[in-house]
Amino acid sequence: MKRTDIPKILDGTHPTAGRGVALAHQALIFASGLAISIETVPNLPEWTNHGLRVFELTVLVVFVLEYLTRLICAPRPVRYALSFWGVVDLLACLPLLVFVAPELAAVRMLRLMRLAALLKLLHTNRAMLRLETALHQIRGELAVFAFLAMIILYIAAVGIYIFEHGAQPEAFSSIPMSLWWAVVSFTTVGYGDIYPITPEGRIFTTVLLFIGLGVIAVPTALITSALIHSDVVSRVEHDVEEDLR
Amino acid sequence: MKRTDIPKILDGTHPTAGRGVALAHQALIFASGLAISIETVPNLPEWTNHGLRVFELTVLVVFVLEYLTRLICAPRPVRYALSFWGVVDLLACLPLLVFVAPELAAVRMLRLMRLAALLKLLHTNRAMLRLETALHQIRGELAVFAFLAMIILYIAAVGIYIFEHGAQPEAFSSIPMSLWWAVVSFTTVGYGDIYPITPEGRIFTTVLLFIGLGVIAVPTALITSALIHSDVVSRVEHDVEEDLR
Amino acid sequence: MKRTDIPKILDGTHPTAGRGVALAHQALIFASGLAISIETVPNLPEWTNHGLRVFELTVLVVFVLEYLTRLICAPRPVRYALSFWGVVDLLACLPLLVFVAPELAAVRMLRLMRLAALLKLLHTNRAMLRLETALHQIRGELAVFAFLAMIILYIAAVGIYIFEHGAQPEAFSSIPMSLWWAVVSFTTVGYGDIYPITPEGRIFTTVLLFIGLGVIAVPTALITSALIHSDVVSRVEHDVEEDLR
Amino acid sequence: MKRTDIPKILDGTHPTAGRGVALAHQALIFASGLAISIETVPNLPEWTNHGLRVFELTVLVVFVLEYLTRLICAPRPVRYALSFWGVVDLLACLPLLVFVAPELAAVRMLRLMRLAALLKLLHTNRAMLRLETALHQIRGELAVFAFLAMIILYIAAVGIYIFEHGAQPEAFSSIPMSLWWAVVSFTTVGYGDIYPITPEGRIFTTVLLFIGLGVIAVPTALITSALIHSDVVSRVEHDVEEDLR
Repeated sequence: MKRTDIPKILDGTHPTAGRGVALAHQALIFASGLAISIETVPNLPEWTNHGLRVFELTVLVVFVLEYLTRLICAPRPVRYALSFWGVVDLLACLPLLVFVAPELAAVRMLRLMRLAALLKLLHTNRAMLRLETALHQIRGELAVFAFLAMIILYIAAVGIYIFEHGAQPEAFSSIPMSLWWAVVSFTTVGYGDIYPITPEGRIFTTVLLFIGLGVIAVPTALITSALIHSDVVSRVEHDVEEDLR
Repeated sequence: MKRTDIPKILDGTHPTAGRGVALAHQALIFASGLAISIETVPNLPEWTNHGLRVFELTVLVVFVLEYLTRLICAPRPVRYALSFWGVVDLLACLPLLVFVAPELAAVRMLRLMRLAALLKLLHTNRAMLRLETALHQIRGELAVFAFLAMIILYIAAVGIYIFEHGAQPEAFSSIPMSLWWAVVSFTTVGYGDIYPITPEGRIFTTVLLFIGLGVIAVPTALITSALIHSDVVSRVEHDVEEDLR
Repeated sequence: MKRTDIPKILDGTHPTAGRGVALAHQALIFASGLAISIETVPNLPEWTNHGLRVFELTVLVVFVLEYLTRLICAPRPVRYALSFWGVVDLLACLPLLVFVAPELAAVRMLRLMRLAALLKLLHTNRAMLRLETALHQIRGELAVFAFLAMIILYIAAVGIYIFEHGAQPEAFSSIPMSLWWAVVSFTTVGYGDIYPITPEGRIFTTVLLFIGLGVIAVPTALITSALIHSDVVSRVEHDVEEDLR
Repeated sequence: MKRTDIPKILDGTHPTAGRGVALAHQALIFASGLAISIETVPNLPEWTNHGLRVFELTVLVVFVLEYLTRLICAPRPVRYALSFWGVVDLLACLPLLVFVAPELAAVRMLRLMRLAALLKLLHTNRAMLRLETALHQIRGELAVFAFLAMIILYIAAVGIYIFEHGAQPEAFSSIPMSLWWAVVSFTTVGYGDIYPITPEGRIFTTVLLFIGLGVIAVPTALITSALIHSDVVSRVEHDVEEDLR
């Protein structure tokens, strides 16, 4: 085994070595993300906090060792250190500083940088490629849709501000506040923190929601038609390849 | 009529005998599920409780008789007893123990196991097969989508925790709690139990909800394109079959 | 003009006479529906109530005259009187009784029966036919989907009842109450009247909502694929017709 | 450069001159829209209010200068002054009156008229054209869908009023109020300001929401099938053009 094989084994892209090391590595990143979540839960029992602390230290030591290994094994160490993944790997080691200087608690979040490594998994995925191709094809339409959606949201916010500000000066206190209402309503989330109460505000909302339903239908329609289009294209290409054999 | 015909009659798959017994059997399972729901309603009049009790006992006796019949009539009784449906049928009889030992109230829920039998109905359904074929075809894309959705949910939870924990330490008390908010918001359910109140939290939510709308559009698009694809394939196969005649 | 032409003029299906009478007739039905809504608003000024009363009486007189006209002009009056539309037209006249016996206030709702007449408009609509054809074609799949959705709702209701009844005996008081929660959550309406608060209830909800998103995507996908299918079929038929000329 | 070239440069449609002026113009309109929103935020620090005031005056002076330039440079000034865009450009200058007569605060909203100018951007956009073609093609179906949706909303409002008015005379106080509930529920927004509490009201809502899910699926399906249809047509046209070369 050559020195430069080690990063490939860590990434699971080595041709002959198994994917065991890579899977263990990914599982550790997952577990690390989970541990960060759980740490924030208030009033955990002491032993859990202690265990999470120990696990955090272990993970960080592994990350440091991995960073050093990758640095040593890289064909060009400096190039790796300055590359995107090199910076991500280094930043993910920084939370070790918290154990030296506890006042730097916010630095611990940097461990999450590691989660970016999970995105490497999707790079070579065939299904992901198909989605990417479809989305790339309709980027123009999606941009127009986003622009239209923003205009509609702005009009909705200004309109509801005019209709509701008098009746609810607290809830619809300003146009940015009304924009928050517009976002929550158009995405059909509807938390219920602010909603119109005047008849004219409600009629305005009704009209806009019906337009909004149509607008929300557009991205689904665009993605579907792009996927079907890419289906047809890939099938035709497949047929042509077969014919040429 | 042979002994081994009886289970087929109960399942409604017997070639000559009618489906009457099977339909009555399914209706009983439905009624049993309904009775379990109604039992949990508090402050029912005494006669309703009494009636439900009697009905429960009747259903259980029928289930026991059915289990015994199936055991006796099975070509290989031991094999049936250890099969998936054999275990389901047996478990569905266990609630009878409640009438002997009332402290085992939780066992009554086991009667719900019977509902699984209703799923047998869908096995041979042509429309179900079409859906299954379509879903099977895009399982890779759906898995990638689920993975992506999980990553986005995690990022949303960490982000909103950073933005809102200071302003609402009760509502956004931890990252798992923020994950609950992320799930409720991304699925556009929006109960309104927790929502961001800081401007930065709201801007973050707005950006994420727009990405979320796109993400939610993807499974619909995938299922649609798979259904259309399977339509085309099945029609072509149909044509080829006709040509060969 | 013959006697039997009058109902056709009222319906707007007369070949030579204009559609003016029919449009005025439909506008009156619309206005009548609107008036019934407005009447229910509490604390209306006296003149509005009076005006609505007069309008109601006018509309009813028109409905009675229309009914009599149709009865007289029908080729077979008895057959019309016993037909579906004959009964609807008669029921819509009954609210006149309220002016004689004011204690029969509930009868006024019968005037809404007239709204059914608006559905006549859709009968011959080409776009409606296309939708109907598409929906008819996938009725099997839609039925299977409805069945599956019901099973999932039932499982969701039983599960959340088990997880949340202890923590919220008021909100999740029974399985039928939990079913209401399941309906509100799965349709992503999310009023916020009841929602899970225990960690296990929330994890259960998360898993179910993700399945739910997929389930909700299915009818959209089915309708889309049916519309596209009917598009292709009608275009092919159109081409064949053109070739035959 | 000719006099009549100036409007084209402002619009970014001049063949040789760059798009710099047009982009700066559009950015100013955007910034003006943003400034109007921010102005409504209560309790802004004094310097922000002052800055926004100065910015508003600057923008208005630019708008006035632009209007005068367009008027002078137009091939037929009177025709421009009476055209749609001429009126929009003039109205957008009116807020200048506020600086003379501060009691006309509402006039400031007229500055928003300028946002309409942003819609000019979409006129020549290829992706927008594709969406417009698709929507134009299914306008009949969309109208039928809107009509059906209105009928269902009306039935829902009357039904819930009958079921819930007795139990919640405040929330479901009238049929127009129930219509608001119907709109909020069918669009799956679900603010949670009003919702049914009686068992019969909830069963009615459940049935209607399931129909509603299907109805909401229809516009998505229609837009998707139209986009796919226009895809196929444009591809065929493209092929035919290529064959003719």
